Amino acid sequence: MIERVRVAVVGVGNNTSALVQGIAFYRQTGSLAGIHKPTIGGLGVGDIDLVAAFATSAEKIGKDVTEAIFMPPNNFPRLNCELPAADVPVTRGLVDATEVDRVAAALAGAEVLLYSAPSGRAETARAYAEAACKAGVAFINTTSDAVARDPMWIDRFETAGIPILGDDLASQFGTSVVHNALLRLLEERGLTLVSSYQVNLGGTEDFRNLVENPNTKKQSKLNALSADDKVQIAPLGYLSHLNSQKVAHLNLEALGWGETAVSLDVKLKVHDPSGAAGVNIDLIRIAASAIRNGRGGYPAEASPLLKSPPGTAI
Amino acid sequence: MIERVRVAVVGVGNNTSALVQGIAFYRQTGSLAGIHKPTIGGLGVGDIDLVAAFATSAEKIGKDVTEAIFMPPNNFPRLNCELPAADVPVTRGLVDATEVDRVAAALAGAEVLLYSAPSGRAETARAYAEAACKAGVAFINTTSDAVARDPMWIDRFETAGIPILGDDLASQFGTSVVHNALLRLLEERGLTLVSSYQVNLGGTEDFRNLVENPNTKKQSKLNALSADDKVQIAPLGYLSHLNSQKVAHLNLEALGWGETAVSLDVKLKVHDPSGAAGVNIDLIRIAASAIRNGRGGYPAEASPLLKSPPGTAI
Amino acid sequence: MIERVRVAVVGVGNNTSALVQGIAFYRQTGSLAGIHKPTIGGLGVGDIDLVAAFATSAEKIGKDVTEAIFMPPNNFPRLNCELPAADVPVTRGLVDATEVDRVAAALAGAEVLLYSAPSGRAETARAYAEAACKAGVAFINTTSDAVARDPMWIDRFETAGIPILGDDLASQFGTSVVHNALLRLLEERGLTLVSSYQVNLGGTEDFRNLVENPNTKKQSKLNALSADDKVQIAPLGYLSHLNSQKVAHLNLEALGWGETAVSLDVKLKVHDPSGAAGVNIDLIRIAASAIRNGRGGYPAEASPLLKSPPGTAI
Amino acid sequence: MIERVRVAVVGVGNNTSALVQGIAFYRQTGSLAGIHKPTIGGLGVGDIDLVAAFATSAEKIGKDVTEAIFMPPNNFPRLNCELPAADVPVTRGLVDATEVDRVAAALAGAEVLLYSAPSGRAETARAYAEAACKAGVAFINTTSDAVARDPMWIDRFETAGIPILGDDLASQFGTSVVHNALLRLLEERGLTLVSSYQVNLGGTEDFRNLVENPNTKKQSKLNALSADDKVQIAPLGYLSHLNSQKVAHLNLEALGWGETAVSLDVKLKVHDPSGAAGVNIDLIRIAASAIRNGRGGYPAEASPLLKSPPGTAI
Repeated sequence: MIERVRVAVVGVGNNTSALVQGIAFYRQTGSLAGIHKPTIGGLGVGDIDLVAAFATSAEKIGKDVTEAIFMPPNNFPRLNCELPAADVPVTRGLVDATEVDRVAAALAGAEVLLYSAPSGRAETARAYAEAACKAGVAFINTTSDAVARDPMWIDRFETAGIPILGDDLASQFGTSVVHNALLRLLEERGLTLVSSYQVNLGGTEDFRNLVENPNTKKQSKLNALSADDKVQIAPLGYLSHLNSQKVAHLNLEALGWGETAVSLDVKLKVHDPSGAAGVNIDLIRIAASAIRNGRGGYPAEASPLLKSPPGTAI
Repeated sequence: MIERVRVAVVGVGNNTSALVQGIAFYRQTGSLAGIHKPTIGGLGVGDIDLVAAFATSAEKIGKDVTEAIFMPPNNFPRLNCELPAADVPVTRGLVDATEVDRVAAALAGAEVLLYSAPSGRAETARAYAEAACKAGVAFINTTSDAVARDPMWIDRFETAGIPILGDDLASQFGTSVVHNALLRLLEERGLTLVSSYQVNLGGTEDFRNLVENPNTKKQSKLNALSADDKVQIAPLGYLSHLNSQKVAHLNLEALGWGETAVSLDVKLKVHDPSGAAGVNIDLIRIAASAIRNGRGGYPAEASPLLKSPPGTAI
Repeated sequence: MIERVRVAVVGVGNNTSALVQGIAFYRQTGSLAGIHKPTIGGLGVGDIDLVAAFATSAEKIGKDVTEAIFMPPNNFPRLNCELPAADVPVTRGLVDATEVDRVAAALAGAEVLLYSAPSGRAETARAYAEAACKAGVAFINTTSDAVARDPMWIDRFETAGIPILGDDLASQFGTSVVHNALLRLLEERGLTLVSSYQVNLGGTEDFRNLVENPNTKKQSKLNALSADDKVQIAPLGYLSHLNSQKVAHLNLEALGWGETAVSLDVKLKVHDPSGAAGVNIDLIRIAASAIRNGRGGYPAEASPLLKSPPGTAI
Repeated sequence: MIERVRVAVVGVGNNTSALVQGIAFYRQTGSLAGIHKPTIGGLGVGDIDLVAAFATSAEKIGKDVTEAIFMPPNNFPRLNCELPAADVPVTRGLVDATEVDRVAAALAGAEVLLYSAPSGRAETARAYAEAACKAGVAFINTTSDAVARDPMWIDRFETAGIPILGDDLASQFGTSVVHNALLRLLEERGLTLVSSYQVNLGGTEDFRNLVENPNTKKQSKLNALSADDKVQIAPLGYLSHLNSQKVAHLNLEALGWGETAVSLDVKLKVHDPSGAAGVNIDLIRIAASAIRNGRGGYPAEASPLLKSPPGTAI
């Protein structure tokens, strides 16, 4: 029987809630529904143990992670399963680089560090990367802050023989996935795009942050949509009633044979944190396989799961 | 300069209207919008001349084909271009096999015969195939009637050194194309389909015929959707107000990570005859290239354009 | 404290399931959500007791009604409440008029008979009406069969001093309600309708029956939509996956100022049996108030709840 | 034959384009499609003549108004009619209160002044009101700036025996109209709203202004939606591709009988300037009838056409 992966996580938000609950759900039910890869490197989705969790919210610190994941502003729903206490109290996360050593010490016993805090705090992300490197722990950056796509950091991890994965996870199934698929489909079939739009609405704290600081994310989304100036993205809408659900409205107007009109309207409804957890579970297993096999640096097989892998603009 | 393809067509309905008007439109405008392949075998979409047209409607017979395509029940709109008279009067189509020789004689001067009559008259389709074979003209069957997928007919055409293409053209962009793309996308991303439906509404004579005789087409569509019993297709709806437009409503309900709900709702609006003409223009050019190069039998490159190519169930 | 209404019901399908479960739900939770009228004649929605139930399905006969409502083909979901046994075994329903006396005897102790069997069995409906009249029990016909709008029957009940209500209940919130509201809204605002369609999809046994026998219901729906030939109704679609949910797609195309285009697309999703129960609970209370006050014949206040009240075409 | 109303307009944007073109369209075609009231006070929609137009854009000043309405950033489409030159060159609009007398002089010959500039310039709106009052011309304020709902201004006009109408025109058919109708419908039928949202997307200059200065309009919209905290409005999205079209996505989630789920999703597509012109044509005729009948002050029959009539908060 394979040894379970020991994972530390930074950020005890909705995405961590979905990850922790999902692991418990699949262990108990044996279901394979909604799982992208049943096994990676021999590791099933249940073969993950959380061994440490860092957060900065005073309310969450000290609570068991299985309790902290349900504290506001988290609003991912309770999955339909038992959730035994993890016996992992939430640890105070680092605030500045002077605390790298404390965090590195706290990572003893972990194999993988999943950095799952909000985007937009590049210094913090890099401090955790440094702590992981010192502790000999694989590092995954799920935020859009440039770490894994920074050649300096890849070099450091490669030299240390430790894997580093990132940046910016691509949701298992989100607006970009669907929009891109439809844009590609039009192209494959020889239709000519006239115009297209995308509106995203959500009720998580992540959404609220993005609404208040919209520019980077919107640009990143536009990049993800093949830089076509016929595609326009409306401002994100924070609607608290949606809780952890995201709703997207897409429209594509195109021309077919004889320049006759073709139109497509799509409504997509998903749980954003599920889309993140469904990819994090793969990144963790790729990271674990790499570190167990002594492969340092960036493992290329992670690229399809990332929006900004090494080689993309910083 | 390449020699234009001389095409005879059976059926002067909406699909022929879209084909004839579209060729004129692209010649005049030089537009490439909505075209799947700008050239095939060196042939552009404007390099097609209609040289004969067969129909059974008393009103259409004797009229120039550029006039007949606007007669009821045809309801494909006038495209935004001049349509010079073709100087091709509509000829009386064959009613039974005794007329094969008359039709074969009328095909003198044609290179390709496009069989674009309504589905459901297998005897008629085969009589035209026989006429084409006798006249040394490439044959394209766009209906679901089994001709090109029947080994006997392929043999005959192969022996005669004449190309035969079919059966049942796959629309350039229709409900099946979009539905299949989304079903595949869910699967690729690891989501689990719970249920899906498709409703098709249209206002053409074809739609009216299908509504009155629904079973074969529905089965054919289900086959096209990867035979998944989670996919249900509602009865076709004939709504005369839609004229040549088709509207489809699709729904897909799936499970993502942790069995959380994912849903997709799609409305698609297209002109059905444009979807047919956009593929017929490719089939004609494949057929012309084959006959000009002396390739008899079935040209494999036609398969992506067909729902029931050779090898599928008869 | 008001005396509870003693109700007998014919038909132990989804609508009865929604009624019986809903009464229990509201008694337990004290919720008022989804209730049209908290009280009618002093009667709350919890002030109803089922005292008899008739059905023809061999499996259901003899079972307690609280058990029988979950037997196939019923597929209305279990509401989130306890459902104590009613101690009302399902009685064999009548098959022909010879059994009127047996049913009348079984109605002893009831005040109201709710006829909630499938539409299309006018003889049966009238036999139950006769039994109710004999037993001195108020009669409610929820089907489209002509009973309460037949002057002969109103006379009989009026003479007997017993209330009769019907025919054909208008759902609390269904496709017609929404479609009519939008058509009226366009008119009020001075827009000119160009075309409109409606597609209804459902997964209940009622839907399956309507699909197999579509004409009457479709006509009835069209009548309900102000007899406008610009409104077209697509064939009903039976999609078993929907279970007791109904999904409707509506489209309205109109002209505004300067004949510029206005379009509305609507997707509606409801539980059909809830829409029926939400109206049946009002009809029952109107019937009970009338019989307790000695008002025979048709109580006019029922008309807004009915599609074919007295005075409409038979 | 009735004497035509002589109207001056402030603002030569999309709304004026729709008004001017629409009047020409209806005169030529005799169509009544899309017209709210064929006549008001005996005045048809064609009985309006534009006699003066004020604008501040250097490009528009001096051009005939029938030319200026097609200059950028205007993007309302050309209607399908001839548009004879009006022989009304666009006059330089006022920039501050020192120009009131110049404008008043320019209003000689007009009966009604339609103030149709962008919202948000209260001083300017009031300066035009003053000019109208001096010139003895009825004043209509279509913006959200407080003029007609300010008791001081009503008094002045009443004393002068001149009508004043406003503020903030309610579109003939827009998002609020549809959203309110559906919210009311749920309530009438006894359903309980759980949550609702509204997203508005548009491509006019008005939209661009609102996106850059969103708060007032959003609040005004929320007020229009019966102040229900269950209704959330997403940020407006400026999408240039939409040109003068507005697209709105609405969602309503509610509870029916037994607290079962009911959901409604709506997509609305309209030309915003048509919605304005369709109401301005009524306000103009109400104003003309009032001034011709010597009725000064606020004519109460205008209230249904306004969002902020006298009596609402300033």
